Amino acid sequence: MTRFALTLEFDGGPFMGLQRQPHGPSVQQAVEDAAFAITGARAIMHAAGRTDAGVHALAMRAHLDIAKPLTAFRLMEALNARLRPAPVAVIACEAVADDWHARFSCTGRAYLYRIANRRAPLALERGRAWHVPQPLDAQAMHRAARALVGRHDFTTFRSAHCQAQSPLKTLDRLDVSRAGESVRIEAEARSFLHHQVRSMVGCLVLVGLGRWDEHRVAQALEARDRQALGLNAPPEGLYFVSATYPSDA
Amino acid sequence: MTRFALTLEFDGGPFMGLQRQPHGPSVQQAVEDAAFAITGARAIMHAAGRTDAGVHALAMRAHLDIAKPLTAFRLMEALNARLRPAPVAVIACEAVADDWHARFSCTGRAYLYRIANRRAPLALERGRAWHVPQPLDAQAMHRAARALVGRHDFTTFRSAHCQAQSPLKTLDRLDVSRAGESVRIEAEARSFLHHQVRSMVGCLVLVGLGRWDEHRVAQALEARDRQALGLNAPPEGLYFVSATYPSDA
Repeated sequence: MTRFALTLEFDGGPFMGLQRQPHGPSVQQAVEDAAFAITGARAIMHAAGRTDAGVHALAMRAHLDIAKPLTAFRLMEALNARLRPAPVAVIACEAVADDWHARFSCTGRAYLYRIANRRAPLALERGRAWHVPQPLDAQAMHRAARALVGRHDFTTFRSAHCQAQSPLKTLDRLDVSRAGESVRIEAEARSFLHHQVRSMVGCLVLVGLGRWDEHRVAQALEARDRQALGLNAPPEGLYFVSATYPSDA
Repeated sequence: MTRFALTLEFDGGPFMGLQRQPHGPSVQQAVEDAAFAITGARAIMHAAGRTDAGVHALAMRAHLDIAKPLTAFRLMEALNARLRPAPVAVIACEAVADDWHARFSCTGRAYLYRIANRRAPLALERGRAWHVPQPLDAQAMHRAARALVGRHDFTTFRSAHCQAQSPLKTLDRLDVSRAGESVRIEAEARSFLHHQVRSMVGCLVLVGLGRWDEHRVAQALEARDRQALGLNAPPEGLYFVSATYPSDA
């Protein structure tokens, strides 16, 4: 049995989410079915993050235990051949130690949230960014985001379905920047609560629109109450960017 | 009657091409049908370029003559509302002089060709770039492209269906660059022959793969023979980027 670490790119649009779901397609099911077709054995995929329906990944990390003798390159090629036409690609694959765990060994996660801030609807970026037609003040959003960086009780920014034991998380980075009509929000932490990034982005957008003053984000955080949340941003703008591991160094 | 200049973004994937076709959907038909729904009058759309099936546009320029009294902003909003769900967006609209012509007044056209150069299939960029799995030498491609810049008889790089009167064109720019796994080819000219960009890209890719030596591009050009063409690149990597007009200055 060899443990293989996979790096996955996927378009979240057609999936119910990364995790296997009883009622629809998932990235996990697509990869596990591809592995079964190759090896004839059922393997469970574990991933660094459990992204929601519609959320994309540039480089999600995951692992699978495979008994059949295969090189990492052959496994990657075979998985990619079997994954078609699902929009999931294995962009890297390597054999790792048996105690390497995509979720539990992960010490850092990075997300990107993309907003297309223009009047016209999206043709090329549809489903790949949140379309916000009203002008956003990205500098005000960045200033407001300062209140969220650090160790806090993020109860306000946590889904009712969140399974984390504690709402205390340390947010290492939350930067907002603009390039033309594209507004990018980059978030990094050891781990995030369910819906945390989308909830933070939703409130920052209210600031960007001038509907919330900048201090209200800090007030929402201090409220520790989901009712204080302004808005949950839609999934199509969210990308899982990278996971880091101590063994990467 | 007011002439309106439109700037269009579109995903070429679902269309038979920009121009109206008898056998399937076109960008022209989508825009003309939207205008008819708004005004009750048939207007013909003229565009700076006649892109093929699958070719995208970041900012195609076009014009329509509209009798109904409408501001440019209202026309843009109404067209965008009627264009849904087709992946075409009017990203700018302005009233122009009656003798401004999107095609005949245009003095410069710019195209971008995107190649995703990596082993793994494309998940997020599928249909938006040409997937070339073998390593490309982008520097060799750029050197080989020097032979094509300038005024030449581009018969080799011209579709059999090309309607241009002369194969003589002046290519102002053909630059190849790499950023990570993305290879970009940027082409600029007053006008292009049908399939010229895709034909040039196809030959440059043969150079990038090492299947053609760099001088063979110049030889193919000098042959003035479609049989000397190495490869026509697929449409999904091609983007119409911009059109320029004397009135822009």
